[in-house]
Amino acid sequence: MPKPPSSPADAYRPTDRTVPTRSADRASYDRELVHGILDETYLCHLGFVRDGAPVVLPTLYARVGERLYVHGSTGSRPLRTAGDTADPGLAVCLTVTHVDGLVLARSAFHHSINYRSVVVHGTAYQVTDPGERRAALDAVVDHVVPGRSYDSRPANAKELAATAVLSLDLDEVSAKVRTGGPNDEPEDLSLPHWTGVVPVVRGYGTPVPADDLDPAVGLPDYLTVL
Amino acid sequence: MPKPPSSPADAYRPTDRTVPTRSADRASYDRELVHGILDETYLCHLGFVRDGAPVVLPTLYARVGERLYVHGSTGSRPLRTAGDTADPGLAVCLTVTHVDGLVLARSAFHHSINYRSVVVHGTAYQVTDPGERRAALDAVVDHVVPGRSYDSRPANAKELAATAVLSLDLDEVSAKVRTGGPNDEPEDLSLPHWTGVVPVVRGYGTPVPADDLDPAVGLPDYLTVL
Repeated sequence: MPKPPSSPADAYRPTDRTVPTRSADRASYDRELVHGILDETYLCHLGFVRDGAPVVLPTLYARVGERLYVHGSTGSRPLRTAGDTADPGLAVCLTVTHVDGLVLARSAFHHSINYRSVVVHGTAYQVTDPGERRAALDAVVDHVVPGRSYDSRPANAKELAATAVLSLDLDEVSAKVRTGGPNDEPEDLSLPHWTGVVPVVRGYGTPVPADDLDPAVGLPDYLTVL
Repeated sequence: MPKPPSSPADAYRPTDRTVPTRSADRASYDRELVHGILDETYLCHLGFVRDGAPVVLPTLYARVGERLYVHGSTGSRPLRTAGDTADPGLAVCLTVTHVDGLVLARSAFHHSINYRSVVVHGTAYQVTDPGERRAALDAVVDHVVPGRSYDSRPANAKELAATAVLSLDLDEVSAKVRTGGPNDEPEDLSLPHWTGVVPVVRGYGTPVPADDLDPAVGLPDYLTVL
């Protein structure tokens, strides 16, 4: 269960749509917890409404302070036109989820998943300032592989212009966390089924150099510590 | 790049909203490819519209033939009331994404991710038939841990009634796949940056028995092969 934040400034303010109607004990608005969940991965699922219907697309993102930057070149016109002069921004919901374990209870009903998720509601805007756009793209690259933006050719003007970047401020935000073992019913405790948690692990395999890489170029340190 | 399906019956029919406006060469409607991506994991991101705004929640699902079942007890009222008598179903977008590798190009611009994703558009309905509801819940448990539904106490009537299950037919469906190495510009090939792919691996750690598990209950075979 998430810890309560130590002061109101350390927490996002709950709103009607960030207070769940069930499992409310798993919800948290703690800023540090939210940042940690967001910083641990680089892929989010971004939802928006197109022609009245929901659309959910996977996309890369990075956090810079209280602002998220989302890589908008996902083939979706609403993402590429959000915040154009004629457009007041795009209502989005950005969700990030880590699965930490499979929770196997003695009863089918109490099976669960240990997870940590963050849901961000808000309005995404196209980043038009060239400096902010460049910094945002570097942040996305470095969010995937810390240190990498310094070891690659920076985007030129044409490339920068071809990349859509959206910003989304962290304001209406909540986390949900489930940890621990199964919660079996007392009358099930003597059932003969194995019960516990299977940890889910994530990691990286050995980097595979491109066919055309000069063999003199060794593996950089930042890839050995991934 | 995805293979073309061998016959029209092996593919979903593309629609306006499943044909991307960019990176269209990564799109596929191949049924077998879609099923494979859906069956490889158990967590989706489900999008719907609430009060005109998008909502994206992580939730468990399973595929049974051309139908997905989604565990609807996510604390969200729209998911729990979809398909009630007064409700014609809930427009949803269900997205599943596997990240397979980090693609490090010599230029920041050509950095990418190897991934496989499926996006399903459609209408989700509450599953009300008790038999289908039970089968759907078993399918969700077995989708997470194959074989587990036979080694746990089945849901009783009260538990079944307390669990929301939604169905979503596979009809308007597309996959997107990126594989392979970086696509650097010819003029960048001599730059001194390491370039290639860092594989992303997923797996399971050693199962952790619950504190109250009878030590005589050994680890079941289906957990040793996860």
